[in-house]
Amino acid sequence: MIVPRLIERKRDGGRLEPAEIRELVLEYAEGRVPDYQMAAFLMAVFFRGFDRTEMSALMEAMLASGKRLDLSRLPMPRVDKHSTGGVGDKTSLILAPLIASLGVAVPMMSGRGLGHTGGTLDKLESIPGFSAALTLTQAEQQIARIGCAMLSQTDEIVPADRRMYALRDATATVEVIPLIAASIMSKKISEDLTGLVLDIKRGSGSFLPKLEDEIELAKAMIDLGASHGCPVVALLTAMDRPLGHACGNALEVAEAIEVLKGAGPGDLIEVTMALGAAMLVLAGAASSQEAARAMMVDAINSGRALIKLEEIIAAQGGDSGVVRDPGRLPRAAYAETFVAKREGVIQSVDPRAIGYGVIALGGGRRNMEDRIDPSVGFVITAKPGLRVAKDQSLVTIHARSKEDLTLGRSILEGAIVIGDSSVTPLPLLSHWVTARGVEPIG
Amino acid sequence: MIVPRLIERKRDGGRLEPAEIRELVLEYAEGRVPDYQMAAFLMAVFFRGFDRTEMSALMEAMLASGKRLDLSRLPMPRVDKHSTGGVGDKTSLILAPLIASLGVAVPMMSGRGLGHTGGTLDKLESIPGFSAALTLTQAEQQIARIGCAMLSQTDEIVPADRRMYALRDATATVEVIPLIAASIMSKKISEDLTGLVLDIKRGSGSFLPKLEDEIELAKAMIDLGASHGCPVVALLTAMDRPLGHACGNALEVAEAIEVLKGAGPGDLIEVTMALGAAMLVLAGAASSQEAARAMMVDAINSGRALIKLEEIIAAQGGDSGVVRDPGRLPRAAYAETFVAKREGVIQSVDPRAIGYGVIALGGGRRNMEDRIDPSVGFVITAKPGLRVAKDQSLVTIHARSKEDLTLGRSILEGAIVIGDSSVTPLPLLSHWVTARGVEPIG
Repeated sequence: MIVPRLIERKRDGGRLEPAEIRELVLEYAEGRVPDYQMAAFLMAVFFRGFDRTEMSALMEAMLASGKRLDLSRLPMPRVDKHSTGGVGDKTSLILAPLIASLGVAVPMMSGRGLGHTGGTLDKLESIPGFSAALTLTQAEQQIARIGCAMLSQTDEIVPADRRMYALRDATATVEVIPLIAASIMSKKISEDLTGLVLDIKRGSGSFLPKLEDEIELAKAMIDLGASHGCPVVALLTAMDRPLGHACGNALEVAEAIEVLKGAGPGDLIEVTMALGAAMLVLAGAASSQEAARAMMVDAINSGRALIKLEEIIAAQGGDSGVVRDPGRLPRAAYAETFVAKREGVIQSVDPRAIGYGVIALGGGRRNMEDRIDPSVGFVITAKPGLRVAKDQSLVTIHARSKEDLTLGRSILEGAIVIGDSSVTPLPLLSHWVTARGVEPIG
Repeated sequence: MIVPRLIERKRDGGRLEPAEIRELVLEYAEGRVPDYQMAAFLMAVFFRGFDRTEMSALMEAMLASGKRLDLSRLPMPRVDKHSTGGVGDKTSLILAPLIASLGVAVPMMSGRGLGHTGGTLDKLESIPGFSAALTLTQAEQQIARIGCAMLSQTDEIVPADRRMYALRDATATVEVIPLIAASIMSKKISEDLTGLVLDIKRGSGSFLPKLEDEIELAKAMIDLGASHGCPVVALLTAMDRPLGHACGNALEVAEAIEVLKGAGPGDLIEVTMALGAAMLVLAGAASSQEAARAMMVDAINSGRALIKLEEIIAAQGGDSGVVRDPGRLPRAAYAETFVAKREGVIQSVDPRAIGYGVIALGGGRRNMEDRIDPSVGFVITAKPGLRVAKDQSLVTIHARSKEDLTLGRSILEGAIVIGDSSVTPLPLLSHWVTARGVEPIG
């Protein structure tokens, strides 16, 4: 294998054989193909694409690069939820304890921030002491004991994907359907699931702003799941604005805890409930979406979901006290309110600008080596379509310094547009995609 | 500067400001932008291009990344020749001593193999003891003393280009006109030349197989030269087959020495003479191409060109005895003749297959860290259009092992096609491109 020739072939529109992809990926996982060659290859794939055979070979190579969870001896079904990445999306933090508290196992492997989007792992790590670096054996034992583990990709689990995911983030090669599909599904298949619910983001803040691309991505993942006996259903949700209010790691953990306490922003609750209902139905734990919703409401009202979150945090070395007292989460030195410069209607809250804004404040990575400040970010009550008065509070900025408050203001001035026209944001929930086809909602 | 966003902008067809290119390139030269980000960026440039402003900014940034030669106190003109890269092209090894022996200074900075093509530096380093790692001061002193220095890019000289050149080689991002033009011209401008002759390769073995691309490249370099007061003329020469017979580092040094002794393959002599004549005319040392050719023939016949090569090798620590006795060059353990399987007409000798074949035998790099075996390669007497008998010798394979002889044979079976049709290879010399325009030859 002469790597530059493989890159050249893809660059010039050719295709790679499954054996070539396997060798390239496994050698990359072992560090024998350097990052710079993989980066050039991935950019060529951005322009030239991967067909279904190449995509499937990529996923199989990633799976072959590491080990998998073995949960086959558990008595209960195992489901997970995965999002294609958004801004302010903390549904995983809510769903993992919520579903696990209802007797369905949730082996949840999460990633770090990618591009402008946040990562569940970065959010979890804002909890003092929390570690997602579980071995497979530790994860299996924890799931057997408390029904859930929230783990990162260690070197054991699809290491090829782990390296490639970080590399894509740093090289603007994220938005490629077959790469996204193979990356997600390699991790999910290695979780040994009996079912998977996908949250596919739509709109300007998603990696794939076009509806047909989102549907193609859903279908690709449904096919990859089917090849390993894992049924997949996908829900298309709006990401033309941030989800919920909080954007930034510790701020999002606090908001997730609010929802588990029965409070929190309406849009966040609605998306979480729709995904959770699908998980429970797919697991066979509920006979209908309505029954599933009733079960979740009960788990929240009874406090069982909150207790499950405490169990998970404690099991993974974290300070479970943050659940009762979110004030124990890291807090930025400076907080300031950002107000409307004029009265009018919120035209847009640009999720990309907000996501990159969190990174600029120190809450995300600019390259693979960066460290994150978990405390910073925005809490944005402004939503597109909302009528606001002059000087009405729209956002609270959380920052490390006065200079960063100024930076935060200038980011928000670009990200939030107030005008006079009425506005129609994307519907929060728009389509289901399943093995049977595409089904619009409402 | 958030590098992934610059990559993303270029990827999506946008352009970069000169200040952005300058920062990206200078940070890359300092190691603060990693190779993998630059690799993805360069692949995006492969697909999206660079306009003239971006190209010029790239060259200026490369120049700003290092120091330059200062030859302004020399009494004689300073010219160099540069090729866009071919297989079997050892004209630099001949022209440097030849032109320097005629009272014109030749500050020649050379590169390593790139893609399937060889590099003058790799060839020179096959001479025992030879070092091209001169400081700028050493190079200036040597040029003042003997009229020529053959130097590599040290960390002093356009270090940004040096890193990027190696990276492009390893990432299949070589064939991009503005990158080629800026890379070459940054090095040539830093040589403090009074004139430059370009050898732009045409045909299947060139980086730019299309004639219009080659002419565009020539014009781009002429413009970049003009912006620094360095007149440039370009000769388009055939690279649909290797030049001369020898392909492989030490083998090519031996063939260059043959030419300086008045022997050697006709096609190699013809290209060398045309380029040398242009150098002498551009330097003002000859009033016409005919006068220049007569001067060169005299320098060869009198032995002065050969003595100059000995001086250069000795000045740079090499064993100058190789000039009189090329048997002192590294020699491969195994040599074997490759013969025609049938009678007929040589249809093609694929220079890419030959060039990559030399790499496969160990005579070139697969990635930036590889070391080269200078002894291996092919000596190919077969030329397209030549009528051959069955079992006629076409090539001598030089290899490190019996297994590599087998590999060499299989490479040649793919690279050399014998058929029955007559064949019209590209004309050896086809166009001159100067500031005045394009002029076809013959």
